[in-house]
Amino acid sequence: MIVVMAPSATKKNLDNVIKKIESLNLRTHLSTGDERTIVGVIGDKKIIANLEMDMMAGVEKTVHITEKYKLVSREFNPADTIIDVDGVKIGGNEIVVMAGPCAVESAEQLREAAKAVSSCGAKILRGGAFKPRTSPYDFQGLGEEGLKLLRETADEFGMKVVTEIVEGGDIELVESYADILQVGARNMQNFQMLKALGKCKKPVMLKRGLSATINEWLNAAEYIMKGGNEKVIFCERGIRTYETYTRNTLDLAAVVAIKNLSHLPIVVDPSHGTGRRDMIAPMSRAAIAAGADALMIEVHPHPEVALSDGNQSLTPEDFKKLMSELNGIANVVGRTL
Amino acid sequence: MIVVMAPSATKKNLDNVIKKIESLNLRTHLSTGDERTIVGVIGDKKIIANLEMDMMAGVEKTVHITEKYKLVSREFNPADTIIDVDGVKIGGNEIVVMAGPCAVESAEQLREAAKAVSSCGAKILRGGAFKPRTSPYDFQGLGEEGLKLLRETADEFGMKVVTEIVEGGDIELVESYADILQVGARNMQNFQMLKALGKCKKPVMLKRGLSATINEWLNAAEYIMKGGNEKVIFCERGIRTYETYTRNTLDLAAVVAIKNLSHLPIVVDPSHGTGRRDMIAPMSRAAIAAGADALMIEVHPHPEVALSDGNQSLTPEDFKKLMSELNGIANVVGRTL
Amino acid sequence: MIVVMAPSATKKNLDNVIKKIESLNLRTHLSTGDERTIVGVIGDKKIIANLEMDMMAGVEKTVHITEKYKLVSREFNPADTIIDVDGVKIGGNEIVVMAGPCAVESAEQLREAAKAVSSCGAKILRGGAFKPRTSPYDFQGLGEEGLKLLRETADEFGMKVVTEIVEGGDIELVESYADILQVGARNMQNFQMLKALGKCKKPVMLKRGLSATINEWLNAAEYIMKGGNEKVIFCERGIRTYETYTRNTLDLAAVVAIKNLSHLPIVVDPSHGTGRRDMIAPMSRAAIAAGADALMIEVHPHPEVALSDGNQSLTPEDFKKLMSELNGIANVVGRTL
Amino acid sequence: MIVVMAPSATKKNLDNVIKKIESLNLRTHLSTGDERTIVGVIGDKKIIANLEMDMMAGVEKTVHITEKYKLVSREFNPADTIIDVDGVKIGGNEIVVMAGPCAVESAEQLREAAKAVSSCGAKILRGGAFKPRTSPYDFQGLGEEGLKLLRETADEFGMKVVTEIVEGGDIELVESYADILQVGARNMQNFQMLKALGKCKKPVMLKRGLSATINEWLNAAEYIMKGGNEKVIFCERGIRTYETYTRNTLDLAAVVAIKNLSHLPIVVDPSHGTGRRDMIAPMSRAAIAAGADALMIEVHPHPEVALSDGNQSLTPEDFKKLMSELNGIANVVGRTL
Repeated sequence: MIVVMAPSATKKNLDNVIKKIESLNLRTHLSTGDERTIVGVIGDKKIIANLEMDMMAGVEKTVHITEKYKLVSREFNPADTIIDVDGVKIGGNEIVVMAGPCAVESAEQLREAAKAVSSCGAKILRGGAFKPRTSPYDFQGLGEEGLKLLRETADEFGMKVVTEIVEGGDIELVESYADILQVGARNMQNFQMLKALGKCKKPVMLKRGLSATINEWLNAAEYIMKGGNEKVIFCERGIRTYETYTRNTLDLAAVVAIKNLSHLPIVVDPSHGTGRRDMIAPMSRAAIAAGADALMIEVHPHPEVALSDGNQSLTPEDFKKLMSELNGIANVVGRTL
Repeated sequence: MIVVMAPSATKKNLDNVIKKIESLNLRTHLSTGDERTIVGVIGDKKIIANLEMDMMAGVEKTVHITEKYKLVSREFNPADTIIDVDGVKIGGNEIVVMAGPCAVESAEQLREAAKAVSSCGAKILRGGAFKPRTSPYDFQGLGEEGLKLLRETADEFGMKVVTEIVEGGDIELVESYADILQVGARNMQNFQMLKALGKCKKPVMLKRGLSATINEWLNAAEYIMKGGNEKVIFCERGIRTYETYTRNTLDLAAVVAIKNLSHLPIVVDPSHGTGRRDMIAPMSRAAIAAGADALMIEVHPHPEVALSDGNQSLTPEDFKKLMSELNGIANVVGRTL
Repeated sequence: MIVVMAPSATKKNLDNVIKKIESLNLRTHLSTGDERTIVGVIGDKKIIANLEMDMMAGVEKTVHITEKYKLVSREFNPADTIIDVDGVKIGGNEIVVMAGPCAVESAEQLREAAKAVSSCGAKILRGGAFKPRTSPYDFQGLGEEGLKLLRETADEFGMKVVTEIVEGGDIELVESYADILQVGARNMQNFQMLKALGKCKKPVMLKRGLSATINEWLNAAEYIMKGGNEKVIFCERGIRTYETYTRNTLDLAAVVAIKNLSHLPIVVDPSHGTGRRDMIAPMSRAAIAAGADALMIEVHPHPEVALSDGNQSLTPEDFKKLMSELNGIANVVGRTL
Repeated sequence: MIVVMAPSATKKNLDNVIKKIESLNLRTHLSTGDERTIVGVIGDKKIIANLEMDMMAGVEKTVHITEKYKLVSREFNPADTIIDVDGVKIGGNEIVVMAGPCAVESAEQLREAAKAVSSCGAKILRGGAFKPRTSPYDFQGLGEEGLKLLRETADEFGMKVVTEIVEGGDIELVESYADILQVGARNMQNFQMLKALGKCKKPVMLKRGLSATINEWLNAAEYIMKGGNEKVIFCERGIRTYETYTRNTLDLAAVVAIKNLSHLPIVVDPSHGTGRRDMIAPMSRAAIAAGADALMIEVHPHPEVALSDGNQSLTPEDFKKLMSELNGIANVVGRTL
């Protein structure tokens, strides 16, 4: 941490700043410029992380040099982490595709979707049983019945299950049916749930919050890892900006950022990330080209009758075509699909 | 809802659209322009709310005409709702001030703060016992011990207590100590907690999410009211924008919007809304001038040693000066402080 | 400027960094932490401003300590600058109101508006003769004819004229009719025009760009002052955010920021800042309460037939009522209207 | 356009609305719902574009159904427009790469860069002679001397020239040296310059504004086409969001949007779009995968001594490696490089 003193700071101001820092067993290092004195703070990172100096007389501003997250950082673990989802490996050479409907609506709908996507190479079945919806009057999901359908259907087609968890208290229930527990964008900083997921044995897919910075996202993952669960997968799903043509702005540079800053794998969700069916294929190709480890794509056998997010779901036919294109891109970047 | 057909839509496309709408016991009304046909959808609002037409062949876009929230709307209840917090009335003619430290740190710190703020006219004591923090290594609050201190201290000075709840399971605990349960920005769309708060008997103060639209915020409040708790108070605390000079961008127009669209009261939090001590006084004055019903201000007896958010806390002296200015503004807008 | 070396930086990396800095006649100051070495750069601000070190091997990041603007800064000129617009003083104790239609449409419309607003105390007549519009098919303004009408009408009612300039080449023309030249949001970083306005003798009102940071805004003003024109007035008119309920998000904290960082006066435009007639009065009150030196308000004798921005214009009756409220707020903050 | 009447609107309100619409030779079509009446407006698009109804008594809101731009729209010209830059075709099957330094600094620097990039297949030389910079104290470019160097250097290596124009009055000058005139992000809504460029004979590359919507961007291009210049090329260069890890947020979904809505070609600039050298290669690959027609990449022979934007420039070695990867992606999407 660096403390920048104001040009108007007095000798006494500076002495007080130094005194406060040194009282916490931290060391200081002074750098005296033509107008300003700068105080470098050296010592235990955790103590520095909680140090608040901005309020002291004569202080102009403070600059944090090091980030607070540790376990999720590439520095901590230079090699890529590969997460084994009961045999399906995320973060390795093979690009994994998760597909299925936005919400589980019925056994028939799910079976039809699973049959279609598994036959094209999707290894993980997605589908919401608990749906966080903006309005209380919107369809909220089938609950445990939806979880059962996901498990049975996935098993029938040799797939794994990823599904959203919306409450810390549901972990045991969701864990008993699903292979990956998904934290939705609206819960990315539901720290109580993140702490609870730190005790969970199954991998957690952590979606980026609607307006979360990359730094906040990494810190949210740190909550889970600090709790003991090392199997965290990031999922970029678009951020909120002023643009209204797309539902969100899919931030593919975040894929590169995460791969640089962390050893954990990252999935891209172009369905929520754009909210437009016509953009799913090009943005899926772009995600693989940018370095994503996996994709999560909404496929609905009959999108026009979907109970939620129909306008961002592919038909099985569209999905089939897309999978063959993705194979080509994967090869160019030295991976397989 | 209005369904806009594409210029290229066929007669068959249009027929299918009409057929789908009418199959749900809704009525249609056609308007044929020079290039496009527009289909108005008439009938039960709840069915229309869940209608997804964008995916159908020939549909260019759909436009929702009515909002989904109902109980929170000014249309539903034209008169201002006044919420009685054990004798302190929020939303009436008197402007209420909530003040205290960001986090409860010790009995001494809290007592000193409560003494100072109550002597200047603050009626509600604020202070976090459970702190949602970006990093798991930051101070997380004193927990139940903090709640006890809040209750005892408030009682000593004849104040009420507002404090944050971070998990649905904590309602009973927090309710037993606090007078108002605060939902933080990061939990505004923690729908499970909102549903649980619908069963709670105490008033709920719902902070606006970091990047929540006014519409999403109203819908979040609808979750609580729909559950049976009619005592909801909004709290504007700044939104996330590209500007970095302030911690958030305090959106005072949202005060006007909420007063127009809803009958519920609204509080403004200039401390989190700006993140800068030098802005608290001017933005507090502005909030009252814009029509806010209450203010929530961080006051710390010794901000320079605060464990969290010290740089956005007022000293007791600053607070005293501010309160006398606010009185003048309140009078101009026909209210009292 | 501070150069933060990466933990992995070698002695040779550090030597090269120091060598580059010293080759430019700047001095360095080293601070060696447990993990990182930090290099402080001391010397001529202008040379430091153009120093790019991020690309050098071993450099993790750089932090600029001082801002580049100088003439506009409060540090450079601690006292408030009062700008004399041919007798009307902006930035002093009296709050100035600029009012009139969005666009000049006809002699009659302008006269009716000027009569109404001047009788309520507005001293400066606003109105666009050159309108920058999103679409080329929208009304683009009356041009010089509009300027003439502004001058004649203002003279008739003893008012001054503020109007937008959209091209550097128009300065002489606009200057010959107007008392204040307004730079619109879309031209805030039209640096060629800013340079040209630096040679202009009349005051310039610089609107904040749609997504301009406060720092960029101050630097834009620096372009004008550096050119020799010291009469610059800032105008906050709302920034672009994700919220769509309002046309822009009026950032009143920016008023406080500008008053802290600069000695120049600041106007608030609640009409463009919100885009909603029902918000103009409350946000005008809030602007004065936050410390604004002036207001700019759209008033149209018949807003429902306005050629542009009718939905954000007050009627003369609304305006009259507002002016009396503003007087009260001004008094509370120790000013007059 | 659709006019939504408020539930409280009277018969007289409705009659006035209809009367106003019909007075402009437009037709109306009424749709009466359970709560609201909706008035469809039918007739001449240009008249409707300027119709303002929001202010009329009883009107709740208006919804524009059709966009105002026409010449740039895919509807107007269903086939892809291929722009011939003196033999180099942009928008066709071949993906074009524009490369070179951010700013022209010297003959030697430019020659070294041009030699390197042309030998790898870049066909168009980029380089700024007029640099729009945030601070007036930053390097502003070499001016005409820079244009001359660009022309001579491009000719020596058989390349074309793209360079920025910052003022309408410079068109003749810039046109005499350059093959493509670039409009920078800060000038995207400098409508006077856009109008002037409508008279220009050379192709114009229109960068997206820092916070421009796709709709505003299309309208800006419409200004140029309406003026008579049909050779417009879009350039996505990142938008401003709350995220600070990257300089901007590169919006690759905008590539898909532009290809859907317009017949004009689109370039992606990953250098400004991310501001980070380590992201240029992955985002270039992603851009091609998403459907971009061309790339614009900063390459500097010695980025560590660059006078501007050194930290977002590739070295010639990096660039060479990237070009071979791009070839693979181009092939997968059925194009050549």
